[in-house]
Amino acid sequence: MAALRAVGSTRAGEGRNSGGGGGMAPPSSLRIHAPSREPKARTMAGAGKVNNPRRRGGGGGGGHMPLWRVAVFASVALNVATLALLLHHYAATSPHHHHYAAAAVDWRDRSTASMAPSTGKPAVTPDSVINLDHGDPTMFEAFWRETGDAAEVVIPGWQTMSYFSDVTNVCWFLEPDLDRQVRRLHRIVGNAAADDGYHVLVGTGSTQLFMAALYALSDAAGDGDGDGEPVAVVSTAPYYSSYPAVTDFLRSGLFRWAGDADTFKGDTYIELVCSPNNPDGTIRESVLDSKTGNGKTIHDLAYYWPQYTPITKRADHDIMLFTVSKSTGHAGTRIGWALVKDREIARRMTKFVELNTIGVSKDSQLRAAKVLAAVSDGYERRPEMTSSSPTTSRLFDFGRQKMVERWSMLRAAVAASGIFSLPEETSGFCNFTKETAATNPAFAWLRCDREDVDDCASFLRSHKILTRSGEQFGADPRYVRVSMLDRDDAFEIFVNRLSSLK
Amino acid sequence: MAALRAVGSTRAGEGRNSGGGGGMAPPSSLRIHAPSREPKARTMAGAGKVNNPRRRGGGGGGGHMPLWRVAVFASVALNVATLALLLHHYAATSPHHHHYAAAAVDWRDRSTASMAPSTGKPAVTPDSVINLDHGDPTMFEAFWRETGDAAEVVIPGWQTMSYFSDVTNVCWFLEPDLDRQVRRLHRIVGNAAADDGYHVLVGTGSTQLFMAALYALSDAAGDGDGDGEPVAVVSTAPYYSSYPAVTDFLRSGLFRWAGDADTFKGDTYIELVCSPNNPDGTIRESVLDSKTGNGKTIHDLAYYWPQYTPITKRADHDIMLFTVSKSTGHAGTRIGWALVKDREIARRMTKFVELNTIGVSKDSQLRAAKVLAAVSDGYERRPEMTSSSPTTSRLFDFGRQKMVERWSMLRAAVAASGIFSLPEETSGFCNFTKETAATNPAFAWLRCDREDVDDCASFLRSHKILTRSGEQFGADPRYVRVSMLDRDDAFEIFVNRLSSLK
Repeated sequence: MAALRAVGSTRAGEGRNSGGGGGMAPPSSLRIHAPSREPKARTMAGAGKVNNPRRRGGGGGGGHMPLWRVAVFASVALNVATLALLLHHYAATSPHHHHYAAAAVDWRDRSTASMAPSTGKPAVTPDSVINLDHGDPTMFEAFWRETGDAAEVVIPGWQTMSYFSDVTNVCWFLEPDLDRQVRRLHRIVGNAAADDGYHVLVGTGSTQLFMAALYALSDAAGDGDGDGEPVAVVSTAPYYSSYPAVTDFLRSGLFRWAGDADTFKGDTYIELVCSPNNPDGTIRESVLDSKTGNGKTIHDLAYYWPQYTPITKRADHDIMLFTVSKSTGHAGTRIGWALVKDREIARRMTKFVELNTIGVSKDSQLRAAKVLAAVSDGYERRPEMTSSSPTTSRLFDFGRQKMVERWSMLRAAVAASGIFSLPEETSGFCNFTKETAATNPAFAWLRCDREDVDDCASFLRSHKILTRSGEQFGADPRYVRVSMLDRDDAFEIFVNRLSSLK
Repeated sequence: MAALRAVGSTRAGEGRNSGGGGGMAPPSSLRIHAPSREPKARTMAGAGKVNNPRRRGGGGGGGHMPLWRVAVFASVALNVATLALLLHHYAATSPHHHHYAAAAVDWRDRSTASMAPSTGKPAVTPDSVINLDHGDPTMFEAFWRETGDAAEVVIPGWQTMSYFSDVTNVCWFLEPDLDRQVRRLHRIVGNAAADDGYHVLVGTGSTQLFMAALYALSDAAGDGDGDGEPVAVVSTAPYYSSYPAVTDFLRSGLFRWAGDADTFKGDTYIELVCSPNNPDGTIRESVLDSKTGNGKTIHDLAYYWPQYTPITKRADHDIMLFTVSKSTGHAGTRIGWALVKDREIARRMTKFVELNTIGVSKDSQLRAAKVLAAVSDGYERRPEMTSSSPTTSRLFDFGRQKMVERWSMLRAAVAASGIFSLPEETSGFCNFTKETAATNPAFAWLRCDREDVDDCASFLRSHKILTRSGEQFGADPRYVRVSMLDRDDAFEIFVNRLSSLK
């Protein structure tokens, strides 16, 4: 407000001091907050022209100015003053200026002037190394730039400082807004049951919830004395490379990676079912019969969204994991959620997150809630209320269109090259879009068929394409997993380079 | 933009269609975003009056309107239109309305209308249970409410979506803004060396970094085959109750809690030194000699800030942990940081966080950076540039004053009661405030001296005061740890109730 008052007295002096009424100042809470858009104040054509007739003609007598002329001047001055106020305000709240700046302070340290959030991996050039090893979902940036401020979140300095979100909830650090938006989105998409029969738990990514589920399922007896052997953790190859790594890195006495579920013998286990699967995109089901024995199943449904696969049924497993990283693309926010039927399992998973990180960032939860709400809004709004195209407000439309295009480009490149192969395309009826749709997995499970290449990752690395070797997924090193989710420029360089490999 | 266009055509039609020039529409990035402040549009006095003389007098001939009259009408219409636009805009972006609202949508699900971030533990009454078991730092809310928007953060929907923050840094998920503000604050306060000789690592709270340090130090050989015995983890009693819990909950084969450092025999260990100590506030140093043997030390400096203790030296240990929870009070943000000398240790701690949660929320990091910047600004700004009192912009002044007041109230209550005792007050010269200051720990290490009470936590629980038993800290159950950081009303009810216990 100080800046506005200063402006009022120095810039628009004539406007404020002239007769004819009060000024209109924007409320102090008005701020520019989208640094990528330069404010353009449209010029006020016509408002600056004032005829200044010297004739006396018309109303009023004597030597003083007639009222109507006063009104003209006052009105014009008001417009000029308002324009000046607004222009100064925009300049004052741009990223390169701040109310509290002290001239003596080193510019580099000035609190908000030098705030520059990161922008992910460095930009690529046609000659640079293309890193598609990780599923960094920057493909979705284009969509979120178009949504304007629908998904923007503002967090005042005093907000959500407590550890606690809802002390009456099993998951006491879960923000109720996120709980609500998660259930809402699942209801709209129809990909999972998220009614009152399920607890919603939040984690710092679904990775944390995966560990939490292992903890909850392996120590279900709750005696905590460590006498027993660690429970075997299995998944059908090719399995997500993080499963063995995350399971074993602390050499826990509670659970231990035991490899391929297809070859597992035993009746005490935790089976991980990822569907659509990471790395090969296939639709999976549990292979071990958990009814005969002491087996438990965790369903990782990170990719069970319309952009990757048709929504064929409403999943209703005991433990289902989802992540914002792959549904909306907000990997940096680090939010995953679990839908859990059993209250005791939910309680123990909550205990894991409590011991590991005393809960989950509430800032991230609120951002995720806003983002999920924007996704749901895109499908619940009446279509005629927006003039924007479906792909600028409907995330899954955008995503599916993008994945269709990219898989088409990839298949063309593979055909042009001749030394690679890809999984066959499958399709099914999607209950969400009410049409038949193909699967367009988030990763390409690419195999090199050239006889003299038995390590595809090394071969591609020599051509400056970084991928993740099939070995890390319990598969043959002729396979690699390639991210389909990077930015357009990186993906295009990749397919071009791939098509030239013979 | 759609909404603004709609407004332009339905509300201010006369303004846009009348002659005399273009309109001034606020840029699309203009938004109300502080829900606690109701927007007040000041009325435009005087702009609505239009003289409509019927005389023909003055310039122009024939039957058409003279230019100056057109200018009057245009100018006034412009003002009315601008007013209408802005009023509609304020109404449209208030918390109870949203551009995208569809009338058919259930009100409860409307994206932003029902967004209600949590507010921590429920409010207390003079008769309610007072829960001071956890160090929930809501005492600091009062300070941050006074700072206005200095610590407010705005996160656009497309920002920081990538997993990666800086691929060239050891800690590749650390936001550079946070790195900068951490080093800046340490430089200002002088409580730790944070120069180029240190790596800054970020974690989801310092709890995660504590586990990361155990992982990094215990597996330093890096052979990963699990042949060795778990490394003993020790700390001098009374030690922080989470140390044993966090160390052992996964029954890791790498490290295992081994109790009181004072009685530990062995030359391979990880010693935790918390100073000021949790629970008793004492200034601590390592008790085991890490030069003779294979011992390592982790320094937990969560409370080494001016509000709790004089800053007597610039700490420069190998591994130092800090947290936003206890320095600024933003526990819900879940941000801690580590200052680490050794690059390999830093790399392994980073690997832990990568496997555990694939990095740390960037939204939290950016918020923490903004908050830390606001703290530093409070001490680097020229005093004459602000008219606010030191305690509304200077966090540590506020905090120290608050802690002094509370400890005074507590000591008076203990004196009035007669059955309790507290640690003696100590003091030292504070290099930050350049004066002698007392220690005012974040927790009160309260002992019940009544002969018939050997379990103080149970005794206080029967009086509806929840604390944490000394047993959890490796001490006698006559002791309890009581939080000094809760809100004013809870603290006052606590001391009143305590003073009445005989």
